[in-house]
Amino acid sequence: MLIAESQTMPFDAALPLQSGASIRGYSLSYETYGTLNADKSNAVLVCHALNASHHVAGVYADQPNNLGWWDNMIGPGKPLDTDRFFVIGVNNLGSCFGSTGPMHVNPDTGLVYGADFPVVTVEDWVNAQARLLDALGIEQLAAVMGGSLGGMQALSWTLQYPERVKHAVVVASAPNLNAENIAFNEVARRAIVTDPDFHNGHFYAHGVVPKRGLRIARMIGHITYLSDDVMNEKFGRELRNAVNSDTGYKYSTQDVEFQIESYLRYQGDKFSEYFDANTYLLITRALDYFDPARAFGGDLSKALERAICKFLLVSFTTDWRFSPARSREIVKGLIDNRRDVSYAEIDAPHGHDAFLLDDARYLNVVRAYFGQIANSLGDAA
Amino acid sequence: MLIAESQTMPFDAALPLQSGASIRGYSLSYETYGTLNADKSNAVLVCHALNASHHVAGVYADQPNNLGWWDNMIGPGKPLDTDRFFVIGVNNLGSCFGSTGPMHVNPDTGLVYGADFPVVTVEDWVNAQARLLDALGIEQLAAVMGGSLGGMQALSWTLQYPERVKHAVVVASAPNLNAENIAFNEVARRAIVTDPDFHNGHFYAHGVVPKRGLRIARMIGHITYLSDDVMNEKFGRELRNAVNSDTGYKYSTQDVEFQIESYLRYQGDKFSEYFDANTYLLITRALDYFDPARAFGGDLSKALERAICKFLLVSFTTDWRFSPARSREIVKGLIDNRRDVSYAEIDAPHGHDAFLLDDARYLNVVRAYFGQIANSLGDAA
Repeated sequence: MLIAESQTMPFDAALPLQSGASIRGYSLSYETYGTLNADKSNAVLVCHALNASHHVAGVYADQPNNLGWWDNMIGPGKPLDTDRFFVIGVNNLGSCFGSTGPMHVNPDTGLVYGADFPVVTVEDWVNAQARLLDALGIEQLAAVMGGSLGGMQALSWTLQYPERVKHAVVVASAPNLNAENIAFNEVARRAIVTDPDFHNGHFYAHGVVPKRGLRIARMIGHITYLSDDVMNEKFGRELRNAVNSDTGYKYSTQDVEFQIESYLRYQGDKFSEYFDANTYLLITRALDYFDPARAFGGDLSKALERAICKFLLVSFTTDWRFSPARSREIVKGLIDNRRDVSYAEIDAPHGHDAFLLDDARYLNVVRAYFGQIANSLGDAA
Repeated sequence: MLIAESQTMPFDAALPLQSGASIRGYSLSYETYGTLNADKSNAVLVCHALNASHHVAGVYADQPNNLGWWDNMIGPGKPLDTDRFFVIGVNNLGSCFGSTGPMHVNPDTGLVYGADFPVVTVEDWVNAQARLLDALGIEQLAAVMGGSLGGMQALSWTLQYPERVKHAVVVASAPNLNAENIAFNEVARRAIVTDPDFHNGHFYAHGVVPKRGLRIARMIGHITYLSDDVMNEKFGRELRNAVNSDTGYKYSTQDVEFQIESYLRYQGDKFSEYFDANTYLLITRALDYFDPARAFGGDLSKALERAICKFLLVSFTTDWRFSPARSREIVKGLIDNRRDVSYAEIDAPHGHDAFLLDDARYLNVVRAYFGQIANSLGDAA
């Protein structure tokens, strides 16, 4: 088993943000796996989605059960093979898993940021990641890779730093959120900010956590991660504890009756124990705001003109959060610019979650793609 | 314009409920339109869904803007023609629009029911509606009709009182909720019951209303009523007030930024002003529980064997709440029993909401079906 080690990179210089604000005295948590080759040509940056971190692969020596969130994808002999690549996982600004975020102290005020943490965008994250690469002495990435919101970062890399990326692997992602995506984010945010324990985002000072809101947010999230089919197969209309009646129902409005209710409550409770409410707001807003075509009057092909690297896009048939049609929009935009793009639409039952799961066809597509990149690295690898 | 008049029918005898409990001293609010013919053969019962009432068509003399929720369907010369049929709209038990519900006094205790209002099911509602018909002297319905949850009641009528129904019109409905449907209901319920103003359902005594929870519940509901396409067309990524920056964004986690956010907040606010929280719990549970196949080991064909009337089923292509596949399950179950069933799958962009909207093909299908029924009534009509 790969042994991971969380590292911290401090940054003194202020990072200008898309909003016009800036952040200084921040640090990024990151992990690396494998060995950087002599000409530093085998680095792969992995970007995370909403509920994930820089702990991408392996386990910590003192936490043998704390497995990286993409460990099925990344490690020795895995599709992204750490025997051949130097893989970097980085936690984004504003997160609650190590990098500077709302629960940390603002050096300008000496107070915990809370709701005053500056709004960060996908572009800001990419800029911060570029600085991390600078600090690690990596000029160009063999590849940048991510799923969902992580895929948006990978895509944005190819537009913000086209010369620094040779390949981009964009999985289960979209060129922007549609109205329904924004709507679900908004409901989750309203649940959080209207929780009396939110205290306008300064709940830390009150010694409370807006758990009610976080639970609702997570329950909504979970529904959108799963496909209809997988929900029906996994839970269907099964009861948690059938009682002795004709129907088996308890006839109660508040007791847990169906298995799906039990599952969602459990997921919501667990999440509310560790996730930061301000981080949830920040990350969902970063999702809402991402829209590279916006500056080009909505013309995605025009926006993607800047990208010069090669692409692999992957989508999953039952993903209704970021449907295959959204990935195809990106593919079309790239082809309009005659870019080198591979696209795999995987017939998988698991919905959006599929990008994190073991699907042989999916993993083989990624393995083949990275295999080609590894071979192209030549002697220096 | 049809002038409607809300009426009240009191019931002294206790109504046994599916849960084993019973309710006594209750009343039902109802409205009727048109004239009952001499042999009482032209009565049509219209059942309502979650957020609706007995006010199905027309306006009240003193409220000229308070239009019945299915006024485009029902009235003089409309698809369900009140010049030919005697139409009855009834508000269900547990509702907050007139019939006995959680905000009324329990005659057994002298206290407001609140959360102690007994759990009511689709079957219970149908039994209560049957008693109303008894009181009105109507032995057999020319038709029973409903959309969504109202369609479930129409379907249940054909199983509970097969001899009393000649036709059933079941629109945008399903033979039961699937796991995803239950999941959305559960999130909405959790938002309500975890609102500190809910007070375990006895908020009336505290002079408060769990508006936070009701807002979230309604926002979730609205997302599921609309199709992806119609949301994108209506709102897309349009900003409410673009600010003067490259992107037009305000870069705020809590301000309204997108039009879809503004729409959802408005819908949530409005709903929380008038809808009762306990009613929301009761009605979503009635939805969860409805499952006529349950007593037959999940065999819907077996369950539908009891139905002897003729059927019209209608579904809408972009309805992802109760998709056409769910209506087709009912059609199949009826055909397995060699029942007379017509089925129209309407290619409409509006999602679940379509059943309330003006779609010429949809309205014409219903018009033609009721036209045939009217003609079959013969001289007595």
